[in-house]
Amino acid sequence: MQIRDIGEQGLLAKLQKFCPPEVIGDDGAILTTTPGTSLVVTTDILVDGVHFSDRTTTPFDVGWRAAAANLSDLAAMGAVPLGITVGLCLPPDLAVSWVEALYEGLTSCLEISQTPIVGGDICRSSQITVAITAFGEVDPNFTIRRHAAKVGDVLLATGIHGASKAGLELLLNPKIGANLSALARESLIKAHQQPNPRLDVLPHLQELYANSTPVTIAGMDSSDGLADAVLQICRASSVGAMIEMSQLPIAGAIAHLVSAPEALNWTLYGGEDFELILSLPVEKAQLLVEQLGNGATIFGKIIPGTAVKLVDSQGHNPEIILTLDRGFQHFR
Amino acid sequence: MQIRDIGEQGLLAKLQKFCPPEVIGDDGAILTTTPGTSLVVTTDILVDGVHFSDRTTTPFDVGWRAAAANLSDLAAMGAVPLGITVGLCLPPDLAVSWVEALYEGLTSCLEISQTPIVGGDICRSSQITVAITAFGEVDPNFTIRRHAAKVGDVLLATGIHGASKAGLELLLNPKIGANLSALARESLIKAHQQPNPRLDVLPHLQELYANSTPVTIAGMDSSDGLADAVLQICRASSVGAMIEMSQLPIAGAIAHLVSAPEALNWTLYGGEDFELILSLPVEKAQLLVEQLGNGATIFGKIIPGTAVKLVDSQGHNPEIILTLDRGFQHFR
Repeated sequence: MQIRDIGEQGLLAKLQKFCPPEVIGDDGAILTTTPGTSLVVTTDILVDGVHFSDRTTTPFDVGWRAAAANLSDLAAMGAVPLGITVGLCLPPDLAVSWVEALYEGLTSCLEISQTPIVGGDICRSSQITVAITAFGEVDPNFTIRRHAAKVGDVLLATGIHGASKAGLELLLNPKIGANLSALARESLIKAHQQPNPRLDVLPHLQELYANSTPVTIAGMDSSDGLADAVLQICRASSVGAMIEMSQLPIAGAIAHLVSAPEALNWTLYGGEDFELILSLPVEKAQLLVEQLGNGATIFGKIIPGTAVKLVDSQGHNPEIILTLDRGFQHFR
Repeated sequence: MQIRDIGEQGLLAKLQKFCPPEVIGDDGAILTTTPGTSLVVTTDILVDGVHFSDRTTTPFDVGWRAAAANLSDLAAMGAVPLGITVGLCLPPDLAVSWVEALYEGLTSCLEISQTPIVGGDICRSSQITVAITAFGEVDPNFTIRRHAAKVGDVLLATGIHGASKAGLELLLNPKIGANLSALARESLIKAHQQPNPRLDVLPHLQELYANSTPVTIAGMDSSDGLADAVLQICRASSVGAMIEMSQLPIAGAIAHLVSAPEALNWTLYGGEDFELILSLPVEKAQLLVEQLGNGATIFGKIIPGTAVKLVDSQGHNPEIILTLDRGFQHFR
């Protein structure tokens, strides 16, 4: 069954089961917010052939990743999600089951943080496009912002990096993974297909600062890569950084897939791991590493200046200056 | 200069001047809300070739109309705007000036209600797509909802209807407007190109109910046509309606363009006038007509049952039952 067989109203009727019934039927959704909080808003667009393709991404995973990217942006601000809206552009000959699977992926990812879909719009287009806007609420005395890094802070990354890129490469070229265990392989592919936005880190951070609010923690997510996050934080904070190559939170299995320099590239520039990159006083960072059961890594420090340097304290390599040019750019 | 010449970062740099500087540079925008209000969220997508085309719509007007459609949805809930996000899908060979004109149109329409652009995303696509999400806040004791119409209410429309459709037809077939004065012509075209969301009606409504809150006023906007609005309100409220043909708020100049039955069609089904259709007790409706300086019309009443009937009290025509089938549907 194609979308044109059931039309806009028919498709909307099928999608309503994914939304809380109380929000359906008006020009907009009405949501109650917690007094004293500020509203946080973020938006992302995914386009077929640019951000996903049938080769590597099922419609379920397109939905999961779209939700994850937006929830990750909320986590990167320290915000708790309130809801998302879903704008869809769809070709009339697309299968209705594709759209239902997309919504199943969206709601499966949203379920973890109990985030509802509170609105949407669908229209005809030649290219599948998924436009998500997420909104959350944040305690104005406890926010995460890019501009707050200070000289002397250390850089901390949650999770591992390069795994999403490795998973994508495994999907594109299955034979490069011949050396990997089935478990390692699945784990990398899942990192690409169903990344986890790190909203779970926020309560730990709040605990760390329980006695010292108001606070603005420095950080952002690593959706465009670990290197990009460090560069953006440094630019916004007018500081430099030194990244210790041996301390990078590299996905171990990558070493079995590609050469060491390429593994380094994936870790720094792969993107879409949707982890948090934070700049914290060292004692807070160490406590957070403990609280997350070593699910976080201190990999560098903030220094004066504006340069972001990649160093090898063993002295085997010259110092490398990182730039924004390597980040993912559209239109080129 | 095309978008591919300056890339994503170059384009973002040019668009930043349209956004308040304090919201730029993080993963999301942080907005302060008024204590005691609820959040209202609405989203709309416009696609090149579906919702607009170069023949009838300049990029400035695409932006104006996109902002207007979303602000109209907020007005239709009784909400005051807080901000919008703008998601853009753009072909790499599109002129940068096109995107700047789009943003000028957006901000010109938003300026009237002092609504900021607080976020966005841009990406590559084969078809220009503009995805807007608007946020507003509403006093939970004073909302406009579709489900609140009661038997005995009268139906009121702000403004006139069919003008946007007439303007579109004049743009597509300029020769049909040969009988029209330049002023009438311009006015219809402007109704299509730069419709005004009716946020200005809200303070009048609040005044009407100043001594009788909490209240849920029945209504919605006429973005999909006057008939669609009446049908949606009736369906949500489990009531019927009787529309008096001679009282319809028809754009006078339409009579010089097309036959009477076609003028009626445009008025009922034309859509995109972005006026408000309200169901109110008759005394409130009459006061609102006075307050708006006759910029509103009582055109029918709510009756028991589920049918929406179009009647001619002169008895010249048989009663007509309206259905949702005539509304604008995608995918067919």
